[in-house]
Amino acid sequence: MAKGLIILNTGNGKGKTTSALGMSLRAIGNGLKVLMIQFLKSSTAYGEIQASLRLNPDFEIIQVGKECVYKEGNKRRYQCTDCAFLCHIDPKKPDPGHISAAENGFRLAEQSIKSGKYDMIILDEINYAISYGLIKIEEVIRLIKEKPEALHLVFTGRNAHPDLIQIADLVTEMKEIKHPFQKGITSTKGIEL
Amino acid sequence: MAKGLIILNTGNGKGKTTSALGMSLRAIGNGLKVLMIQFLKSSTAYGEIQASLRLNPDFEIIQVGKECVYKEGNKRRYQCTDCAFLCHIDPKKPDPGHISAAENGFRLAEQSIKSGKYDMIILDEINYAISYGLIKIEEVIRLIKEKPEALHLVFTGRNAHPDLIQIADLVTEMKEIKHPFQKGITSTKGIEL
Repeated sequence: MAKGLIILNTGNGKGKTTSALGMSLRAIGNGLKVLMIQFLKSSTAYGEIQASLRLNPDFEIIQVGKECVYKEGNKRRYQCTDCAFLCHIDPKKPDPGHISAAENGFRLAEQSIKSGKYDMIILDEINYAISYGLIKIEEVIRLIKEKPEALHLVFTGRNAHPDLIQIADLVTEMKEIKHPFQKGITSTKGIEL
Repeated sequence: MAKGLIILNTGNGKGKTTSALGMSLRAIGNGLKVLMIQFLKSSTAYGEIQASLRLNPDFEIIQVGKECVYKEGNKRRYQCTDCAFLCHIDPKKPDPGHISAAENGFRLAEQSIKSGKYDMIILDEINYAISYGLIKIEEVIRLIKEKPEALHLVFTGRNAHPDLIQIADLVTEMKEIKHPFQKGITSTKGIEL
């Protein structure tokens, strides 16, 4: 049995979640079963959710985030250009709702990893949850060490923790060279979401 | 009608084709029709080919490459760690078979772009075909300028031509930070293919 890889997609550019989605597609085509747990996200507006339904039961996406956008006066403001639905979380004072959502998500990840039901599990945006202090890096490293031998584990999100980079087999930095927001083009349905 | 984007995934890391596959999945989930033309590739062993069949008719992948691996003695050698099936092409003396395969692929791209049948067209690994001298950059730029307004065009492959970077709206460099080959782990089914 081949050893499962620890894969990490990080950096400030596009393609971290998107590449994990592509990996899912490729894995499914090879007969593997894939689960993606999306931390911090909770909107079914994402195109991948709709598309994944067509690949059931080989591909499941479960969102464990708490929907919330940061408002400034009457305007909706978003945390970053990376994900229009990411919450504005103050890492020094995270909202209890976010903490419990992330904790529940992590418990689900743990159960899914131990279940042996999947060949690949993607913990999407977990790097944010770690850097916001919602999930402890020690817990993540312990989970990696306890995972079934053949399981591929994929981590995405900016600001990857150095301990995660250290333990990973395949680390890619997605680097933004040019972004349409720079040209004043706003979020494009089918591309951003 | 929203303006279609010119998207470019380049760099030496993983995730250029993979991210384009993820974009396809997201686009399909938003009701768009997607075509991926794979230059230089011609093996149905790719997981994405198998998975795409399940998303027909909204997602089509057409391979226009000429199968060929570079042999050194009795051993199979590959062009790069990026794609196990990429051919060894000498840019100073490309094989006529590769030239005509790339030209046919380019004609197919042109017809598909003009057909108005698709919302997103991905020209996978076309950067290699350009840098190997199989396709002229001027032809590619002309195609971009003539494309239907709403069509998203995606280009992948290492060594993107500066003129393509210049005209693109969204450019991401996938940068290899750590690769399992460095640890002596060879190609992993479901991940690399």
